[in-house]
Amino acid sequence: MNKARLETFSDGVLAIIITIMVLSINVPDKASWTILLKVLPTIFGYALSFVFIGIYWNNHHHLLHAAEKVTASIMWANHNLLFWLSLVPLSTTWMSKTDFQDVAIITYAILLLICGISYTLLTRAIINSLHDKNPLKSVLQKYNFKGVFSIVCYSLSIPAAFWHSYISLGLFTLVAIVWLIPSREIEKKVEEKE
Amino acid sequence: MNKARLETFSDGVLAIIITIMVLSINVPDKASWTILLKVLPTIFGYALSFVFIGIYWNNHHHLLHAAEKVTASIMWANHNLLFWLSLVPLSTTWMSKTDFQDVAIITYAILLLICGISYTLLTRAIINSLHDKNPLKSVLQKYNFKGVFSIVCYSLSIPAAFWHSYISLGLFTLVAIVWLIPSREIEKKVEEKE
Amino acid sequence: MNKARLETFSDGVLAIIITIMVLSINVPDKASWTILLKVLPTIFGYALSFVFIGIYWNNHHHLLHAAEKVTASIMWANHNLLFWLSLVPLSTTWMSKTDFQDVAIITYAILLLICGISYTLLTRAIINSLHDKNPLKSVLQKYNFKGVFSIVCYSLSIPAAFWHSYISLGLFTLVAIVWLIPSREIEKKVEEKE
Amino acid sequence: MNKARLETFSDGVLAIIITIMVLSINVPDKASWTILLKVLPTIFGYALSFVFIGIYWNNHHHLLHAAEKVTASIMWANHNLLFWLSLVPLSTTWMSKTDFQDVAIITYAILLLICGISYTLLTRAIINSLHDKNPLKSVLQKYNFKGVFSIVCYSLSIPAAFWHSYISLGLFTLVAIVWLIPSREIEKKVEEKE
Repeated sequence: MNKARLETFSDGVLAIIITIMVLSINVPDKASWTILLKVLPTIFGYALSFVFIGIYWNNHHHLLHAAEKVTASIMWANHNLLFWLSLVPLSTTWMSKTDFQDVAIITYAILLLICGISYTLLTRAIINSLHDKNPLKSVLQKYNFKGVFSIVCYSLSIPAAFWHSYISLGLFTLVAIVWLIPSREIEKKVEEKE
Repeated sequence: MNKARLETFSDGVLAIIITIMVLSINVPDKASWTILLKVLPTIFGYALSFVFIGIYWNNHHHLLHAAEKVTASIMWANHNLLFWLSLVPLSTTWMSKTDFQDVAIITYAILLLICGISYTLLTRAIINSLHDKNPLKSVLQKYNFKGVFSIVCYSLSIPAAFWHSYISLGLFTLVAIVWLIPSREIEKKVEEKE
Repeated sequence: MNKARLETFSDGVLAIIITIMVLSINVPDKASWTILLKVLPTIFGYALSFVFIGIYWNNHHHLLHAAEKVTASIMWANHNLLFWLSLVPLSTTWMSKTDFQDVAIITYAILLLICGISYTLLTRAIINSLHDKNPLKSVLQKYNFKGVFSIVCYSLSIPAAFWHSYISLGLFTLVAIVWLIPSREIEKKVEEKE
Repeated sequence: MNKARLETFSDGVLAIIITIMVLSINVPDKASWTILLKVLPTIFGYALSFVFIGIYWNNHHHLLHAAEKVTASIMWANHNLLFWLSLVPLSTTWMSKTDFQDVAIITYAILLLICGISYTLLTRAIINSLHDKNPLKSVLQKYNFKGVFSIVCYSLSIPAAFWHSYISLGLFTLVAIVWLIPSREIEKKVEEKE
């Protein structure tokens, strides 16, 4: 199994997921500033998911870079992640269509939680496939803490949505910011190895 | 005719097929747990087809890897396969829109049957293009048995749908499981050759 | 300007055009064999356009293979071709939505005519960019006759649609068959050059 | 971070943006020349955006070619540009759906303005990442003038839309023409460097 082809396929699927989301935004039939204002929350929801998929693309790229070979378990862990990510556009649309109601926000949080767990599973599958002497092994295990942090935030955002949906949206934004900070350590180790 | 470009094009088409399926899922206008429950069978249908296309992607990758060159018959057998696979999203949507009625399930089974036959035709086109001394030739001929098994299951699922649609869905799942088991033999031979 | 990147971009656009066409097919809300029969002409229209885009992909691949470099005129001739090809899904949908009425068929014929002319323009742009000593130059000029044949057929299918739309559909099929016959000559010359 | 993978991802997203726009064009249920005439302004809007995305693809290609490495700021400047470009199909549809009303045209102008600024930010991120001795550094800074010209035109098209929407559409076309003129200087310098 070729690593390059798995990357290309994943890139293709991620590029499509990030772009087709825009198709689900309903274009109003009339033009006025009031109508445009009403579309803005939808654009915000789209932007949020765009950033999340963008982050997954970046991290996915670093993660696969660390893999030595593509085993069957890596491949299926990758397909599993792509499946859940492909539901993000749906969940985003539901959130904006229902004016960010708690049920839709909780569903979004649960979906992001499953995506985070799927990413952790992919990380584990790659760790297991690495030789014990590979310096990336320990780095990837440390790297996981970021994933754990996200999973904690997504979990908290579920009960938070019952209290006020803005707290959940705030937690999503917090996760985004944490991931935006580059993981210098893994990059350094990769460079050393090359 | 370049093998890499045929792979890239097929990967692109498969990545789009697997992802656009999600666009056909209707996002409800209101948010409640009851509404979410009603969407779940649709998600199940999507997941089933996601796994099928994923399996085709994997096998297609192994199959093209075995090809020595791209002849006109390989290219058209490949286009033929992609055409039928591109109808899978439609058929999936029909199945979930009609609450898995027998006509829609039979149509889905027939479509998967045609996809299976198209895949067998592509395999044959590749076998015919190989030199007699190529060790992959006999492997690909044995490899075909899996395809034959699928075709038998799809054929059985057609009359089964008249009895009870869940039996057909069970047979689809059985085919998926059989294909998920990696074909160690072809992989080994490919490695030996390289 | 990099030839590989123009190929990748064109492949991406063509893969999307060929696949998104399926999205425009309306999935009926009910399931019965009568309803399935009514969808068949739509599937036929889709299949026809699928073959046409598939042929363009093949020929485009051979054509770009012959190019020595990517000039500005080649790039814009290519973008022009992609633009018209991207309208094929629209025109196909219109044809099937209106039960193959003459106006829709004539529009489809005119669009294919423009695509054929655009392809000829791209061929000319590539011929002009080749060195006089390049053996592909004369081959590409001969190759053009196939394009001329298509343009004649598309032109004939316009008045023919007023008489009977099936004649136009027959002419489209004829063009498809002519293009399906591989152009051995250009392939041979390319091989000699390599 | 790999430059090739960022290019592939951007190419994928741009190919999808340029192609899915066509999906938002409503195909009429009936066929007549009058109906076809009514669709023409929509096709014009699509063509305009097709050219704009095409230009961005060309320039983006030149720009990334000049980059020595992919820093975190380049990557996020690139994602930012892709985000705004992905809204172009929406804005185009709104413009044609509302028969080119001033509010929709102004929104389109503002969006193109933001795209232009995002492109300038990406250019700056790349300039900052270049070594001082790199001959492309001064070229890219000069190259920016074209971007400034666009930004001026987009800005002018906003008040112009209140007067007459055709002036704004004329300004958009002017920007397109200016970008269509190839930037010989940067190409020469790139060739010299290679």
